[in-house]
Amino acid sequence: MKIRPEIILIAALLSLSSLQVRGQQQKSGKPLMIAEQGSFAVGGKVNLTQGVFDIKNALKADGQTFHGDHAYVFYQLPVKAHRYPLVFLHGAGQSKKTWETTPDGREGFQNIFLRRGFGVYLLDQPRRGEAGKSMVAATVTPTADEQFWFTQFRIGNYPDYFPGVQFPKDAASLEQFYRQMTPNTGAFDASIVSESVSALLDKIDGGILVAHSQGGGPGWLTGIKNDKVKAIVAFEPYSGFVFPEGELPSPIASTGLFGALKGTEISMEDFKKLTRMPIVIYYGDNIAASPTSVWNQDHWRSGLEMARLWVKAINKHGGDAQVVHLPEIGIKGNTHFPFADLNNLEVADVLSAWLKKKGLDR
Amino acid sequence: MKIRPEIILIAALLSLSSLQVRGQQQKSGKPLMIAEQGSFAVGGKVNLTQGVFDIKNALKADGQTFHGDHAYVFYQLPVKAHRYPLVFLHGAGQSKKTWETTPDGREGFQNIFLRRGFGVYLLDQPRRGEAGKSMVAATVTPTADEQFWFTQFRIGNYPDYFPGVQFPKDAASLEQFYRQMTPNTGAFDASIVSESVSALLDKIDGGILVAHSQGGGPGWLTGIKNDKVKAIVAFEPYSGFVFPEGELPSPIASTGLFGALKGTEISMEDFKKLTRMPIVIYYGDNIAASPTSVWNQDHWRSGLEMARLWVKAINKHGGDAQVVHLPEIGIKGNTHFPFADLNNLEVADVLSAWLKKKGLDR
Repeated sequence: MKIRPEIILIAALLSLSSLQVRGQQQKSGKPLMIAEQGSFAVGGKVNLTQGVFDIKNALKADGQTFHGDHAYVFYQLPVKAHRYPLVFLHGAGQSKKTWETTPDGREGFQNIFLRRGFGVYLLDQPRRGEAGKSMVAATVTPTADEQFWFTQFRIGNYPDYFPGVQFPKDAASLEQFYRQMTPNTGAFDASIVSESVSALLDKIDGGILVAHSQGGGPGWLTGIKNDKVKAIVAFEPYSGFVFPEGELPSPIASTGLFGALKGTEISMEDFKKLTRMPIVIYYGDNIAASPTSVWNQDHWRSGLEMARLWVKAINKHGGDAQVVHLPEIGIKGNTHFPFADLNNLEVADVLSAWLKKKGLDR
Repeated sequence: MKIRPEIILIAALLSLSSLQVRGQQQKSGKPLMIAEQGSFAVGGKVNLTQGVFDIKNALKADGQTFHGDHAYVFYQLPVKAHRYPLVFLHGAGQSKKTWETTPDGREGFQNIFLRRGFGVYLLDQPRRGEAGKSMVAATVTPTADEQFWFTQFRIGNYPDYFPGVQFPKDAASLEQFYRQMTPNTGAFDASIVSESVSALLDKIDGGILVAHSQGGGPGWLTGIKNDKVKAIVAFEPYSGFVFPEGELPSPIASTGLFGALKGTEISMEDFKKLTRMPIVIYYGDNIAASPTSVWNQDHWRSGLEMARLWVKAINKHGGDAQVVHLPEIGIKGNTHFPFADLNNLEVADVLSAWLKKKGLDR
């Protein structure tokens, strides 16, 4: 049989166009059905300067207020949402952007979990991003430190990528990654952060806290403050682990650039409040198994070890906590941002399975 | 005819429940059908510190980069979106929050125009909000000045609200309004802002720029830089009006706290680029008709007068620009934020009609 050239052309064009459509679908998926979305400030403090406001001297502070230290929250509720939404708290140097589009343009946990029926609340913590009004002053200085962060966040040992790392290797993605950092407009304060997260949980009457890195510490504090925290999910927490009086472990020495990792002692009464909700902690790959002079891998080794001690303490006192080191369940190559890595759908599946097991996906 | 009491009860319950449903719809409306949403950084610069990055001295700047002065963009494309999306640029002291939920919890222009079939791109301009990485240093100081802003933004002459003002009078709304401000992390620079907006318009291949207040100036600059600006909508622009060489008007004296208002002279060649797209400018209420010692009303009088001179210059050179002073078309009580005021749906209708007239809602 002889095939006419114009048929070959038409077939080729059809195949090309279906390819384009597929690429588009893969990018954006089915439409998101959003029942409600919006934003607000939550928590925070207010200072009133003594005196009486004089409209003729309106630039004088007398009688004027300053509101600050609130969180900014953007939320979306899908149609037929599960009972408890996910409340996302970013880590150091990040904003809510961290949960949105990934550096290489794929969907982050915001969209992925919307598609799975969860309401999502994305915070800019007090003194960060759109919640920039801080009750304390700060100086913001441009600092050339991005190759440090590349290394600290375990994309690799700059300029080398870790073999098999789940991070895109093109320049544009790395640029997006660097640009998604944003500075503090006031010193980080775990207590102030947790107050705003707690105020949010009161407002929405319960939720599942998903915290990243430095967000872990305020996460535990929020769990202590407020029984409306129905579960805590932490990706690569490092600092802020709290232990009951008399049970504080020794500091864990590390060649990491932040030195030895210490826990914090709190009352048994407060500690026991962390046994009220299930807790799961995830760590990615390229974390040393034992002390090493490779400082980034050793930094996270101390974090992972401390997390294991902490989970043990929680469970000893009747709680339900676990550490999942992703490589141990066959998920390899993750950086400090497993929820944004190339395999973030696989990581989301692991979290979905845990939420299901805990009855939190209904 | 005798009506049985249980029927009256059922009728009453039915009417109550339909009332509740109506109230809910008014709050959230029908579900938003979002074909695609996400976020990214756009524009910006990069500094590379001389030397070679040494992983053993990873906190030294040598060989390290700093990316900054980009904009942060959150976008949503509704199903069956019109050809050109709206690109929203906030004003001084604000972030993209300004276009989201209003201080009293109603839908802002983000949701309103999504519902009307427009894609929306919401920017945090360089050095603001989640685009906090600035190429220049800044000190952020908590400053008690909110009663000044209440007055400057024409909610009233603090503590008095203007009679009939389209701003909610409860304390919670005012608190939200104060908390939606967020500081600069580097000095405002209209040129840097317009570079990032222009980069966005290239990326999305055309859009309708909607700018507020201080965003007007970078708006005109973007229109000059990039013919992908298909229209400019400005709410209450004040500074940054550009005039062709030899046609700069005299400064407009004002008792406003920013003093006399000056235009900026640019080349005729550049100025004429602003005649390529339709431009509309809206101002709200309580702006003085003639010079007055009431400084807030006089500040905006100078802005409105300058805008009228500017529109005249644009049209004289073949452009299509107009000023709409909302009270003159019967829309009263608007503050500096007409798009968020109590009557923002009515204001949106005015804008929709203009977009339709210009063939930009297809």
